[in-house]
Amino acid sequence: MYTVADYLLDRLKELGIDEIFGVPGDYNLQFLDHITARKDFKWVGTANELNAAYMADGYARTKGIAAFVTTFGVGELSAVNGLAGSFAENVPVVEIVGSPTTSIQEAKKLVHHTLGDGNFLRFEKMHEEVTSAIAHLTAENALTEIDRVLTIALTSKRPVYINLPIDIADVHATKPQAPLNQLTSKLTDVEVAILSKIEDALQQAENPVIIAGHEILSYHIEQQLDEFIQKFNLPITTLPLGKSAFNEEDAHYLGTYTGSTTAEPLRSRVDTADLVLLLGVKLTDSATSGFSFGFTEKQIISIGSTEVLLYGEKHQKVQLDRFVAALATLSFSRFTGDILPVKRQSDLEIKDNKITQKYFWKRVEAFLVKGDTVVSEQGTSFFGMTNVPLKKEMRFIGQPLWGSIGYTFPSLLGSQIANKTSRHLLFIGDGSLQLTVQELGTALREKLTPIIFVINNNGYTVEREIHGATEQYNDIPMWDYQNLPFVFGGTTNNVTVYKVTTEKELNKAMTAARQDNTRLQWIEVIMDQDDAPVLLKKLAKIFAQQNS
Amino acid sequence: MYTVADYLLDRLKELGIDEIFGVPGDYNLQFLDHITARKDFKWVGTANELNAAYMADGYARTKGIAAFVTTFGVGELSAVNGLAGSFAENVPVVEIVGSPTTSIQEAKKLVHHTLGDGNFLRFEKMHEEVTSAIAHLTAENALTEIDRVLTIALTSKRPVYINLPIDIADVHATKPQAPLNQLTSKLTDVEVAILSKIEDALQQAENPVIIAGHEILSYHIEQQLDEFIQKFNLPITTLPLGKSAFNEEDAHYLGTYTGSTTAEPLRSRVDTADLVLLLGVKLTDSATSGFSFGFTEKQIISIGSTEVLLYGEKHQKVQLDRFVAALATLSFSRFTGDILPVKRQSDLEIKDNKITQKYFWKRVEAFLVKGDTVVSEQGTSFFGMTNVPLKKEMRFIGQPLWGSIGYTFPSLLGSQIANKTSRHLLFIGDGSLQLTVQELGTALREKLTPIIFVINNNGYTVEREIHGATEQYNDIPMWDYQNLPFVFGGTTNNVTVYKVTTEKELNKAMTAARQDNTRLQWIEVIMDQDDAPVLLKKLAKIFAQQNS
Repeated sequence: MYTVADYLLDRLKELGIDEIFGVPGDYNLQFLDHITARKDFKWVGTANELNAAYMADGYARTKGIAAFVTTFGVGELSAVNGLAGSFAENVPVVEIVGSPTTSIQEAKKLVHHTLGDGNFLRFEKMHEEVTSAIAHLTAENALTEIDRVLTIALTSKRPVYINLPIDIADVHATKPQAPLNQLTSKLTDVEVAILSKIEDALQQAENPVIIAGHEILSYHIEQQLDEFIQKFNLPITTLPLGKSAFNEEDAHYLGTYTGSTTAEPLRSRVDTADLVLLLGVKLTDSATSGFSFGFTEKQIISIGSTEVLLYGEKHQKVQLDRFVAALATLSFSRFTGDILPVKRQSDLEIKDNKITQKYFWKRVEAFLVKGDTVVSEQGTSFFGMTNVPLKKEMRFIGQPLWGSIGYTFPSLLGSQIANKTSRHLLFIGDGSLQLTVQELGTALREKLTPIIFVINNNGYTVEREIHGATEQYNDIPMWDYQNLPFVFGGTTNNVTVYKVTTEKELNKAMTAARQDNTRLQWIEVIMDQDDAPVLLKKLAKIFAQQNS
Repeated sequence: MYTVADYLLDRLKELGIDEIFGVPGDYNLQFLDHITARKDFKWVGTANELNAAYMADGYARTKGIAAFVTTFGVGELSAVNGLAGSFAENVPVVEIVGSPTTSIQEAKKLVHHTLGDGNFLRFEKMHEEVTSAIAHLTAENALTEIDRVLTIALTSKRPVYINLPIDIADVHATKPQAPLNQLTSKLTDVEVAILSKIEDALQQAENPVIIAGHEILSYHIEQQLDEFIQKFNLPITTLPLGKSAFNEEDAHYLGTYTGSTTAEPLRSRVDTADLVLLLGVKLTDSATSGFSFGFTEKQIISIGSTEVLLYGEKHQKVQLDRFVAALATLSFSRFTGDILPVKRQSDLEIKDNKITQKYFWKRVEAFLVKGDTVVSEQGTSFFGMTNVPLKKEMRFIGQPLWGSIGYTFPSLLGSQIANKTSRHLLFIGDGSLQLTVQELGTALREKLTPIIFVINNNGYTVEREIHGATEQYNDIPMWDYQNLPFVFGGTTNNVTVYKVTTEKELNKAMTAARQDNTRLQWIEVIMDQDDAPVLLKKLAKIFAQQNS
């Protein structure tokens, strides 16, 4: 019999989902049967639900959309921080929550995984704050509600939540009759009007600059953006929240703009531009060194998925993917000034010196290869990577707006599962790794072979920079990082570990790790607890000020 | 200068809190300074926030109340499942969330750890569903709001949430002028009237039985309950949700009642009683084998902290601690029938047989010592322990209503920190351990020496029993449990590990573990993945039915 569960899975398949993450629980087991029964889906169990949400987020960033399954109450609440991160950073993730049967919910029974008060709507109500749509499936509404919320996920690029009472999973259904409503490419009148204003503004601008943000990545419209830039020869920068939205090896790329901490000449160029066109950008504190951008609203046209601002004035919103695709159809004179693309690192000497943050990130630049995916944790790693220019066809994953520590390790795994051919690199500190470390078991079971740099600097260096450098609360227990992978299922057949303290050792480990893509590569990098990338040192002072 | 932070800490100290759990984040660091500056508080950092919430829950169950600190957004949402568990099972935990400064919140700035929409109230709104009170501190309301919500935590025995904008922590304050309003022992008219009805009912009853539930533990009124039972010679049972609410070595204790799965003669005795007096009880599915209790509302007087039912009719609610204390002042004839206390295990033969679930829990019974604290995870462990009679002065911790797997390991650590002299035992399966394993680092750093039984049965046996016995989704990665403690800071100086497959090996390990209280004792117990306690096998069938 074809059921609601089958319908939901057919829709997920139609959207390009091949793997589904999650943790079993007795309110979702019957739904999981439908997943494992199919050859075209793979169930990827995770050690806990938060990690499932993080993994789904990484998968969605790379593949366009993701799904994960939790059980009612306990499971969904464990995962909600992950879903909130997907909401904040515009990542479309579908959470399917298996819940007690319709009759149990209607009878308000005191079943397990509830608060014992007969109220079955509390948790779904909580999720209204961090999702773009909620569906509570019934025998009557299941198919239309599934279509409704999946369409919202596709157009808003934000998470949606499906409450699936477990009896509804097995209700008879009809197969999808037509593909999910995809957006038409036809521009609205509002969009046409705004495009016209952009055309005029660019025609008049003598010194324009484009800033690309994270929504370019969310909508996977890097190609459309590139066509626009190439056609009109425009200089472009990205924010840290949006890094890799544009090919950083391209001659139009100026480097990463971070507000007052930006190196010259980029900083002056952006701050004195007569037109700053923001595409899919949010000017957050962490992306702009505490709102220290030098331009004002009089210079800005900002086109985002939730807000359009023309010189400080709010306009009706646009559909970002359709809109950015239309930019290349505009007609105005090509930019003819100097571009001054970002400078790349010259050759680096390799000595017996201890590894400093400064050295490390220079060395990482040389280590990157076309097509890599780099994931950087929101500590020293993120701020170290910010100013490392990427190679072409690279994707960068970070979480600078939501900034949930521990996010990147499961996210890396999800992204690697979504794209098995791109070599994935993770940069993560010891403090952050401790939050989600158990997914090493999943990484090894799934035979994933990323290169993982564990920056062992004895605690929360990012917090030490902001406040309490020597306070006990910024210390963490010292683990044995060399043996860690081996207790989670690692053997010399599936993992290689390295511990590096000097530049020479780092270089040797990097070379070996790059050559071996048959094993997970685990490189422990010893660095001083008081050492930090220059950008972080500056930003930490700004954050400390912001908190006072 | 004496500040709001100092006031809050003075109040927490007044309630008996000596340790505070949590994870640092830049919106709480200044508050943490106040904790670490004091000699009368200890900061116990945890690897992640969910684990901090679990640890605080265990601490509160043992010590009466607990506090933990998270950061805004990312931290609090990671922890919310733990707080919901505390709400479901009536555990008073105070969560202090360090948030951005008042001026940043008022200006709706796009700072990190928000959804980037300028709305700073979303997360506190979510918490309304799972706490009994919310405070958002301002310079004006801070002291009264702190007192208000802490009083609610004390009287409701449920979690409360304090949003502390980080600038408010350092606002000038005056010291507490008087102790927090504690409840008067004076009974209300409603309480007097209900007590009178209970007196009449017990006078008339020929075959009464008392059932004690988890709220006896929440209000720490085991002593008051005991006085009542002893004075009137009443037979008493507990539910699994409430185990250890009464001394299980006492001659009035009948065993644990679990509905239709209860062994005779207890089952018939309860089901045919002419009066069933429920004290602090919730008749949940997992505590009553799917609502299969044999008594009806016509037999029941139920006194709970949120609901009073007399023969099916709802009455105004009572303050449970005051009410139960008053029961011993009633006047009616002592019960004179037979009590038939629970039978205890006779001596057990120790052979070379492989360890079965049946054998294991019998052996555990003999292993228990007066004063132990036993924590049992909501899998085979909980259902195995349910029918193991405890010794006197023991406390039992489980989570059968909320049932969040992974909860017990951090909870054990929190409880052990709350009571360093009680030997703590944990029973946990491999599947559950994987969710929260990183707190091994905390356990070893804090030099805790519980005895931990890791039941290695290759996956989620509790789920296999319910559905999908051989399905891939009930498998988990196989870890090296023998070496696990050693990567988290373990050495032979602070941890001893055992691996046992046979009865003889188990016996030897138990003897050694009991004798050594200077090291954490880590006993891996190999059992078959299809083996389960009888109670679980029965209950799993009922749950499977409930889901169809």
